Amino acid sequence: MPTTVALAQINLIVGDIEGNARRVIDCAQRLRGRADLVVFPELTLTGYPPEDLLLRPACDRRVAKALHEIATAAVGITLVVGYPALRDGVRYNVAGVLRDGVVEAEYRKMKLPNYSVFDEPRYFEPGANALVFSQGGTRFGVSICEDIWYDMPVQRAAAAGAQVLLNLNASPFHQGKAAEREKLVAGRAQRFGVAVVYVNLVGGQDELVFDGGSFVTDARGRVRHRAPFFDEGETLVDLQGGVPQPAEIEPFANGEAQAYRALVTGTRDYVRKNGFSSVVLGLSGGIDSALTLAIAVDALGPHNVEAVSMPSRYTADISNLDAAQQAEQMGVAYQSIPIEPAFNAFLEMLSETFAGTQPDVTEENIQARCRGIVLMAISNKRNRMLLTTGNKSEMSVGYATLYGDMAGGFAPLKDVPKLLVYDLARWRNRDGEVIPQRVIDRPPSAELRADQKDSDSLPDYAVLDGILALYVEQDFSVEEIVEAGYDRVQVAQVTRLVDRNEYKRRQAPPGIKITRRAYGRDRRYPIVNRF
Amino acid sequence: MPTTVALAQINLIVGDIEGNARRVIDCAQRLRGRADLVVFPELTLTGYPPEDLLLRPACDRRVAKALHEIATAAVGITLVVGYPALRDGVRYNVAGVLRDGVVEAEYRKMKLPNYSVFDEPRYFEPGANALVFSQGGTRFGVSICEDIWYDMPVQRAAAAGAQVLLNLNASPFHQGKAAEREKLVAGRAQRFGVAVVYVNLVGGQDELVFDGGSFVTDARGRVRHRAPFFDEGETLVDLQGGVPQPAEIEPFANGEAQAYRALVTGTRDYVRKNGFSSVVLGLSGGIDSALTLAIAVDALGPHNVEAVSMPSRYTADISNLDAAQQAEQMGVAYQSIPIEPAFNAFLEMLSETFAGTQPDVTEENIQARCRGIVLMAISNKRNRMLLTTGNKSEMSVGYATLYGDMAGGFAPLKDVPKLLVYDLARWRNRDGEVIPQRVIDRPPSAELRADQKDSDSLPDYAVLDGILALYVEQDFSVEEIVEAGYDRVQVAQVTRLVDRNEYKRRQAPPGIKITRRAYGRDRRYPIVNRF
Repeated sequence: MPTTVALAQINLIVGDIEGNARRVIDCAQRLRGRADLVVFPELTLTGYPPEDLLLRPACDRRVAKALHEIATAAVGITLVVGYPALRDGVRYNVAGVLRDGVVEAEYRKMKLPNYSVFDEPRYFEPGANALVFSQGGTRFGVSICEDIWYDMPVQRAAAAGAQVLLNLNASPFHQGKAAEREKLVAGRAQRFGVAVVYVNLVGGQDELVFDGGSFVTDARGRVRHRAPFFDEGETLVDLQGGVPQPAEIEPFANGEAQAYRALVTGTRDYVRKNGFSSVVLGLSGGIDSALTLAIAVDALGPHNVEAVSMPSRYTADISNLDAAQQAEQMGVAYQSIPIEPAFNAFLEMLSETFAGTQPDVTEENIQARCRGIVLMAISNKRNRMLLTTGNKSEMSVGYATLYGDMAGGFAPLKDVPKLLVYDLARWRNRDGEVIPQRVIDRPPSAELRADQKDSDSLPDYAVLDGILALYVEQDFSVEEIVEAGYDRVQVAQVTRLVDRNEYKRRQAPPGIKITRRAYGRDRRYPIVNRF
Repeated sequence: MPTTVALAQINLIVGDIEGNARRVIDCAQRLRGRADLVVFPELTLTGYPPEDLLLRPACDRRVAKALHEIATAAVGITLVVGYPALRDGVRYNVAGVLRDGVVEAEYRKMKLPNYSVFDEPRYFEPGANALVFSQGGTRFGVSICEDIWYDMPVQRAAAAGAQVLLNLNASPFHQGKAAEREKLVAGRAQRFGVAVVYVNLVGGQDELVFDGGSFVTDARGRVRHRAPFFDEGETLVDLQGGVPQPAEIEPFANGEAQAYRALVTGTRDYVRKNGFSSVVLGLSGGIDSALTLAIAVDALGPHNVEAVSMPSRYTADISNLDAAQQAEQMGVAYQSIPIEPAFNAFLEMLSETFAGTQPDVTEENIQARCRGIVLMAISNKRNRMLLTTGNKSEMSVGYATLYGDMAGGFAPLKDVPKLLVYDLARWRNRDGEVIPQRVIDRPPSAELRADQKDSDSLPDYAVLDGILALYVEQDFSVEEIVEAGYDRVQVAQVTRLVDRNEYKRRQAPPGIKITRRAYGRDRRYPIVNRF
């Protein structure tokens, strides 16, 4: 008789210990009789990452209580559940094996990541011992996320007799990560001769999106099962003598499809998990707000999205036309509120103070900030979260106005470089026009003064994005970027802008990490910085 | 002949490797002949904390080059300097002993803090070995900051023969920290029978202020020398056979004096190290902006501070009078710009959109945001950093408007609870009125609607601050706060507001940590959080 393992790829909520526990109990009840063993994501009960909630003594108490209740439900089915656990005054990141109504054994995570967005040694001490248990004649080892990126924990599990290694994950998305994971896990499986059941979390949490894509490899590293990406799923796998039986496997989606789904998932979960159901955004007729609108509609439905165009004296007619056209095409509420009355009021109020000065970026910023006030007013009045529409290229060099176009609760494109914004817009139009073609084709402009073009202030986006990727994501020096083929003057300009604009990014709303290194917890730079 | 040790308590700049190296060389040249040995703060060359600059390969290269230049200057004087060092591909937090033109030996920090604002294991591996060297017949051990908070590194140094333990620090201020440090170090000195030379950094870096107050204890734990707080200093100490000779010691200042100097130092350094020389702020006639103005003037001088009052229909006459009076008393530029024209323009622009709705917090926020636009316009036009005036109590419960009164480059009072705002205002008035007495005596109001008082929305500040200290700084649960004597309804309200307003704090400007736990790097909470 085969042993059936269920991969419970579920969308949990950080801090909702009782709610997450109910999800586990529901799974156990639904799967009893169909599966022998259910594996959940890392830190199931707290969600991931719980950050400093882990330092609250009440967190330990509530986890202990929830764990007791789950154990009671672990009858006729074995559950492998993640949670933080204080043992002899030391906190571990634990996977508990719950069987016959009790917590039968606990595995303590050995490798605690301390790079990129991760801070686990802030909260946990590492474990040292393998855990292997038998179920239906198969010997299962237990491991947690980062463990499988190293030989040692896998080797110890194999040495302790594991045929199948369970791996509980909360592995966030970035572009190309899913393939990277499978390749790495396959190599580990092959090297140590264990099948691997890799269970990932799914859903958004602040700046992170967990992409699911749980999978099973056999002991030769062949992927035998794969759960969906970005959706919840319960994948059932039969093991015959510890060997996962082959099944149909969905192929990977392409890069744009994956990135787009990450943005939709991240936006939907951030909005809803914060208790909102709808959003508002400024629709300028430019590419960034056009793509943001498409993402918002795909995330929340057209009836939950409101678009506002806010023209000024510098707004081209086609900007207004294109904005109105896209709003109509997408079926969202739309209105136009010209900002001239407020802009004029501020110019008048400041006329004495600014007497004798020339117009400069000050007046451009006032326009952007008038738009911010209008959008925030609608957000406040209608309880709709304001989405900010800026992209990563702009965030990098500070080509955005604090409290103006940077105002908002969430920034879906925050980690999307401008060239990828275009790629995603074209990809979203693949089955019919959603974003007007002219919006994609026009040269980008902030429209904050007459005849303004982004290219007046910045290098072409192909050059800009190239320099940024090397500087921000790969830590190249100016010298090394020049050696890679970029113009020295442009490299110096761009890297200086990146350094100088950390203060703006520090006040930016959160957005979804999709590159190897996003701004936010992932890149921790000082503001005062003369490097 | 005594051995003379100099404690180089200097104000370094993060990332300015070449500039910091010049400071070290200047010290060496100036002290040659007067001191045998100069001890500098932790990570002298990069400043502290350098954060992810440490991950840039160029950082290692530039540190290596600067170190070589400093070593060349270490002739006729021994320098103990801190820097990050890659050794066999592993990065350590190092104190180098530079003598006779070379780096003679390196000590690797053993204890790497990973709590509060600290992230050292993200960058460094711990060392394991004591380092002791002789100078003029005295045997000096070396240690770095956190090391001395544990027995092990001190014990190893003593076991290796150290008579005097040098301790290089970058120890940030919080209230009461200086006394805590001296007590702890004295205990360690006594326990292991070593004198301690404790050298601290001084000056502000983003949200941290290093308060200096370097000191020397003898092997019985008696404090024999103390450098100034919040100022640079070169304290020279004679050691006779390893015994520091007693000297006059300045007593500690009181709590208000220390906190106020921390705020002044942090504000001055944040403004200047970011390349600004002057600031602008909104002066409302309330206590927060009044204290912020006093801090700004004490930090930068009255000619570098501009105050703007921005009355609306809801502003009391005495608010305008008190603001004007304080501005005049303090000798700062002052103007009044009523916000009614812009406020009316927005109400008009939104009248159709908001038809049939009742005035609510939306209209209050528009007023605050009109003020934000005016202040940011002056900031942009005159290149003056905008100071935000909100306090910790408000930041905690979200009693502030994003992009409105929260707009600004720096928030001096961000970590100052409201009751302490009053204490500091009274303390600043101790030698004559700087803040009009009526500003201190009036009940606080945001003046965003008719007859508004803070107490309409919030518990009395004595209650609010009490609950916040327990919840935010001490991780008490609701239940535990109620047991401590607070009203259950109020506790539930306040803690819920703290949880719900993480999104606002995430977009707040930086401010100076003065409590045990500040918002920012010190308290890492998820925004999506159903705890």
